[in-house]
Amino acid sequence: MNRTDVTEKIISTKVTKGLTWSEIAKRVGQSEAWTTALCLGQMTADSEHAKVLGEIFGLTAEEQQWLQVPPYRGSLPTQVPTDPLIYRWYEVVNVYGSTIKELIHEKFGDGIMSAIDFSIELDRQPDPKGDRVNVVLSGKFLPYKPY
Amino acid sequence: MNRTDVTEKIISTKVTKGLTWSEIAKRVGQSEAWTTALCLGQMTADSEHAKVLGEIFGLTAEEQQWLQVPPYRGSLPTQVPTDPLIYRWYEVVNVYGSTIKELIHEKFGDGIMSAIDFSIELDRQPDPKGDRVNVVLSGKFLPYKPY
Amino acid sequence: MNRTDVTEKIISTKVTKGLTWSEIAKRVGQSEAWTTALCLGQMTADSEHAKVLGEIFGLTAEEQQWLQVPPYRGSLPTQVPTDPLIYRWYEVVNVYGSTIKELIHEKFGDGIMSAIDFSIELDRQPDPKGDRVNVVLSGKFLPYKPY
Amino acid sequence: MNRTDVTEKIISTKVTKGLTWSEIAKRVGQSEAWTTALCLGQMTADSEHAKVLGEIFGLTAEEQQWLQVPPYRGSLPTQVPTDPLIYRWYEVVNVYGSTIKELIHEKFGDGIMSAIDFSIELDRQPDPKGDRVNVVLSGKFLPYKPY
Amino acid sequence: MNRTDVTEKIISTKVTKGLTWSEIAKRVGQSEAWTTALCLGQMTADSEHAKVLGEIFGLTAEEQQWLQVPPYRGSLPTQVPTDPLIYRWYEVVNVYGSTIKELIHEKFGDGIMSAIDFSIELDRQPDPKGDRVNVVLSGKFLPYKPY
Amino acid sequence: MNRTDVTEKIISTKVTKGLTWSEIAKRVGQSEAWTTALCLGQMTADSEHAKVLGEIFGLTAEEQQWLQVPPYRGSLPTQVPTDPLIYRWYEVVNVYGSTIKELIHEKFGDGIMSAIDFSIELDRQPDPKGDRVNVVLSGKFLPYKPY
Amino acid sequence: MNRTDVTEKIISTKVTKGLTWSEIAKRVGQSEAWTTALCLGQMTADSEHAKVLGEIFGLTAEEQQWLQVPPYRGSLPTQVPTDPLIYRWYEVVNVYGSTIKELIHEKFGDGIMSAIDFSIELDRQPDPKGDRVNVVLSGKFLPYKPY
Amino acid sequence: MNRTDVTEKIISTKVTKGLTWSEIAKRVGQSEAWTTALCLGQMTADSEHAKVLGEIFGLTAEEQQWLQVPPYRGSLPTQVPTDPLIYRWYEVVNVYGSTIKELIHEKFGDGIMSAIDFSIELDRQPDPKGDRVNVVLSGKFLPYKPY
Amino acid sequence: MNRTDVTEKIISTKVTKGLTWSEIAKRVGQSEAWTTALCLGQMTADSEHAKVLGEIFGLTAEEQQWLQVPPYRGSLPTQVPTDPLIYRWYEVVNVYGSTIKELIHEKFGDGIMSAIDFSIELDRQPDPKGDRVNVVLSGKFLPYKPY
Amino acid sequence: MNRTDVTEKIISTKVTKGLTWSEIAKRVGQSEAWTTALCLGQMTADSEHAKVLGEIFGLTAEEQQWLQVPPYRGSLPTQVPTDPLIYRWYEVVNVYGSTIKELIHEKFGDGIMSAIDFSIELDRQPDPKGDRVNVVLSGKFLPYKPY
Repeated sequence: MNRTDVTEKIISTKVTKGLTWSEIAKRVGQSEAWTTALCLGQMTADSEHAKVLGEIFGLTAEEQQWLQVPPYRGSLPTQVPTDPLIYRWYEVVNVYGSTIKELIHEKFGDGIMSAIDFSIELDRQPDPKGDRVNVVLSGKFLPYKPY
Repeated sequence: MNRTDVTEKIISTKVTKGLTWSEIAKRVGQSEAWTTALCLGQMTADSEHAKVLGEIFGLTAEEQQWLQVPPYRGSLPTQVPTDPLIYRWYEVVNVYGSTIKELIHEKFGDGIMSAIDFSIELDRQPDPKGDRVNVVLSGKFLPYKPY
Repeated sequence: MNRTDVTEKIISTKVTKGLTWSEIAKRVGQSEAWTTALCLGQMTADSEHAKVLGEIFGLTAEEQQWLQVPPYRGSLPTQVPTDPLIYRWYEVVNVYGSTIKELIHEKFGDGIMSAIDFSIELDRQPDPKGDRVNVVLSGKFLPYKPY
Repeated sequence: MNRTDVTEKIISTKVTKGLTWSEIAKRVGQSEAWTTALCLGQMTADSEHAKVLGEIFGLTAEEQQWLQVPPYRGSLPTQVPTDPLIYRWYEVVNVYGSTIKELIHEKFGDGIMSAIDFSIELDRQPDPKGDRVNVVLSGKFLPYKPY
Repeated sequence: MNRTDVTEKIISTKVTKGLTWSEIAKRVGQSEAWTTALCLGQMTADSEHAKVLGEIFGLTAEEQQWLQVPPYRGSLPTQVPTDPLIYRWYEVVNVYGSTIKELIHEKFGDGIMSAIDFSIELDRQPDPKGDRVNVVLSGKFLPYKPY
Repeated sequence: MNRTDVTEKIISTKVTKGLTWSEIAKRVGQSEAWTTALCLGQMTADSEHAKVLGEIFGLTAEEQQWLQVPPYRGSLPTQVPTDPLIYRWYEVVNVYGSTIKELIHEKFGDGIMSAIDFSIELDRQPDPKGDRVNVVLSGKFLPYKPY
Repeated sequence: MNRTDVTEKIISTKVTKGLTWSEIAKRVGQSEAWTTALCLGQMTADSEHAKVLGEIFGLTAEEQQWLQVPPYRGSLPTQVPTDPLIYRWYEVVNVYGSTIKELIHEKFGDGIMSAIDFSIELDRQPDPKGDRVNVVLSGKFLPYKPY
Repeated sequence: MNRTDVTEKIISTKVTKGLTWSEIAKRVGQSEAWTTALCLGQMTADSEHAKVLGEIFGLTAEEQQWLQVPPYRGSLPTQVPTDPLIYRWYEVVNVYGSTIKELIHEKFGDGIMSAIDFSIELDRQPDPKGDRVNVVLSGKFLPYKPY
Repeated sequence: MNRTDVTEKIISTKVTKGLTWSEIAKRVGQSEAWTTALCLGQMTADSEHAKVLGEIFGLTAEEQQWLQVPPYRGSLPTQVPTDPLIYRWYEVVNVYGSTIKELIHEKFGDGIMSAIDFSIELDRQPDPKGDRVNVVLSGKFLPYKPY
Repeated sequence: MNRTDVTEKIISTKVTKGLTWSEIAKRVGQSEAWTTALCLGQMTADSEHAKVLGEIFGLTAEEQQWLQVPPYRGSLPTQVPTDPLIYRWYEVVNVYGSTIKELIHEKFGDGIMSAIDFSIELDRQPDPKGDRVNVVLSGKFLPYKPY
């Protein structure tokens, strides 16, 4: 058994039971994004989260243990994602990558936006011309320093 | 001459003159992100934008014309970016890609978040534990429909 | 179980029963292209479509549920397709890609042809010199706008 | 000198003179798609086309000769195009590739749609919900035959 | 079940029974090259071929049906083949590719040699300095035409 | 100076002077395929060939010397060729690669067809249904032997 | 002008003048590793560093300005480095990557070792069996936290 | 059975039993890094190590034999690792690769740092600003010598 | 069943029985290198070799037949090998490839060293400074000839 | 100026002056393989070698200095070499890689054959059936040791 097996069981159970990430997140007591990423094998549970997920998805003790092991991260099967929804995000990095780099350097100096001390929040924003996906990313600035 | 030549001249002039994207954006009258992307060869100017940029960067008439031609987009030299700042964004797509897909589908149904009818805004958010990069992405939801 | 399992069952059943996409599409009540794409795991069914396909292919309730989950899209096993029929389409993109870009920009300005608000229709066109494949693609123009 | 040099001169001159593909095609006396592809280095001119293009773009005799040499085709700098407009076409091949294959085989039997005995036509189709790009592809069916 | 399963059964049976492609081709009534390609999953049988192969290899009715479905072509596991015999052919394309292009254009004008309306014949040619592999390829010339 | 410079000068001169490979081969006194490959930088001249080519293309003594240095072979800019004419040959290797391997092994035993002790001949074969490209490849069989 | 031009000038001048990184680092007043990385175009100078390097390498004011612009990082021409010295480091990541991941998670929990809040120190360690390269890497631990 | 099977059993047992690499290393009597790498299929055990690991993980005699066979090394599923913790090490090689090369050459002359006569040690270093990962790498210098 | 299955059985049996390639080669009556390559699925046995290997490894008649079928060669899972021992050989090709090419051309003229009419022999050469791996490669020179 | 410029000058001068590696190696006083590799930019000269090469090729003082700087090694333009002579060596690594690994491990235990403490010697071996390229590689065995 490995983490991938647990992820597949979770996804499969979610489809069969018709659960939503929103209600799962509420029961876990964390944000939707983090909880979903955890269930998809990208984050690590503590024993409490594992127990709750165990109840929701009918996980064995061993499966709950695997949820508490840091996973080998990376949720995409190819370097350039083929799924159109995910590709659009790759496209944003490609088209706006140099822009983002310039603006962060202008506002903070040399350094990066952390992808570890990081959060993501995604909402539906009503709009008469068509509702919009609104995403807020927040990452700590980490400066490069001479030494 | 091509658009790349104009982009290089703009970047080079910006370094020499010590300009900031923030003041350039103000003079162009558009957001920082869009204006920077335009200067980096990823967006298309109208004649008014081109004229203002022409004054700022000392561009010839021909160079201003090139700013008004839709560019071949893509600002990164490799499929997986090597620059750490830009790589973190690729990493976010890799780690959170499946999560973002799940959440958009849960909130909107099948479809994507547009990367064309799209905007990005990047700010410095003060934080006692270390200032944070705050980014808001907004993209129109486009549904897949049976036909 | 996952969507791929359902797709394989559908394809396998279609070969054994000798069904045609044309009659399947008629029973589903949608176009041939969309219905075929749905059966090949690239589109999402509503509950009505799923029920009809369930009857045609003898799908279980769980399999019908999977048809209603947005799939991870991408129907090709390699970045450059090896199958000659599909490669010819890749070749068209390679040879005519820059031409298509120029003509869309000339007729519409900067922007793209949507692949989401999109339809495809494929017909046999009789021709004394050899019948032709006639394909009509229709995609909404989405403009890039300054912000 | 090579064909690429001629292509670059043509593109550069078109920007400077503010020409349109539509008027160039009219003067050449061929379709917009074919004429544009010719100017972008993907098709071969006869002496008459070369002379007309020579007048439009101020090409030397040697440059006109290069237009009559079959080019090394392929208009994209990377295997997966980064430009969003062209990428959408790659995406269509990826998402619909297996569907197109199924439908051509169902309507014609085993074989391919030629990309050589082939034409493409692209138009703006007015639509109250947003104008659409309408593209018609026509390729001769070429059957695989036992031998 | 899919076509790959049928191909594997055929190859495995051929080894166990000690059959030769030459006698299989005679029974099928087609050339060695086409018949072998069919058995290796690259060509499509008609019902008559399928029946004969069914007898030779002990194929079920369903397996015979799969032989009549156009396959997803491509017989190599990697873009650049690692097997020395097949690599030599890739090498010929690499070393002589530009030469073949020049000679076809000189003899026919702009166009290609079809790989669909195509045949291949391979023979052993006795030679005192060491026997030679003699291969004749024949493909219809398809011209690019302005439209 | 290197061999590539000489190749480019030869190609450029051929276009300007309107020469044909057929007449060049006659003057060099070798086959069309070998002579063309030599001129395209894939084969090595002896001093006599170099002198003749020197006269035809106006090559300096140094340029003639470079023709006599074994070149770094490989005439294609990408692993998978993008030019449709050359791609068809790659496709043949992909679709028929396993077939060719089987037939050579059946007729000769384990070994390969040499791409060094090798010749290629390409002709136009008249055909009422459309003229055909006829290509004869001849390569010495080289057996693998236990040792 | 861009940062690459400045890097090349620095390297070229270092060879010609016979300077050492050790003495350059002393004059800059930072560690050898950081100073060398700065000179090789991977770090950003402040105005004081730039002035000192300007004196050492005879850099113009504009070249000194470029040293103060955050560079597009990545010092290797290929994804897998071909130089044996650098390849050994890639090999260490490949062979010990999973080990390093396990040990960091065991000692710290889920998170990473920062490559930004990071330093590297490299020394020659005398050893009777052959001197050794001793490298100390120090990176802040950054935990993944639920949110 | 192969080494990968043994590695998977070890990892799976470790999770279920809640063991730590630190206690496993103590019982094996070697360093943490080497012992972990051994368990992850990257190093070779002698019969004594194999016996101890056999007791810890309940390995059969055959499984213990596999531990003593030199493995096919390489612990990463992709050329560029997707897991953020391991990627940071790839990033260090990319950003600092040329720096490391320069410093080793300056201190030792031309040659490399061995990745075979090599050790790695990883510790937690308390720090009021956040604890740090401290890693010491030691590799024998191997000079290139003329011959 | 296929050749890979036989290879895996051979390797697995060798580990369990504690056999050596040296004694296997003696019983087969061929060199160590060729015999090992045969057992690893890279060479083809005659019926005599197959029988001997059948006895050593307990192979069935069908498994012995597979040993006599020319295999699809290529023993590495990736284009650039990750295993350090095998990588060093790739490195030698990379670092010395152009040198080997120059020396063969200088001593023989244009042509190649055959990898088919080829043998390899590998020995342990005692050396007070550390024993050495001594490898002798012998390949027939094959000249390129004009035709 | 960089090392590549010096390499190109050396190669170009060698062709023009008609020198041989054999006589160059004699004057340098080292083996043919090492001297050729040095001239092709893969090895590092001492001041004495540099002076001799300076005389042979008419190198300036600065060019001689560059010969004494350890180069960024790797003499091939692509991961898989396209030149048939060099490809055959890649093929040997691919076909015999696993065999070489097995034999070294059997004769020495776990470890590698060094590519640094390494030499290569290449000779023409007369043979009535066609002369052979004889190559002797000698590399120090480096054992993996537990620590």
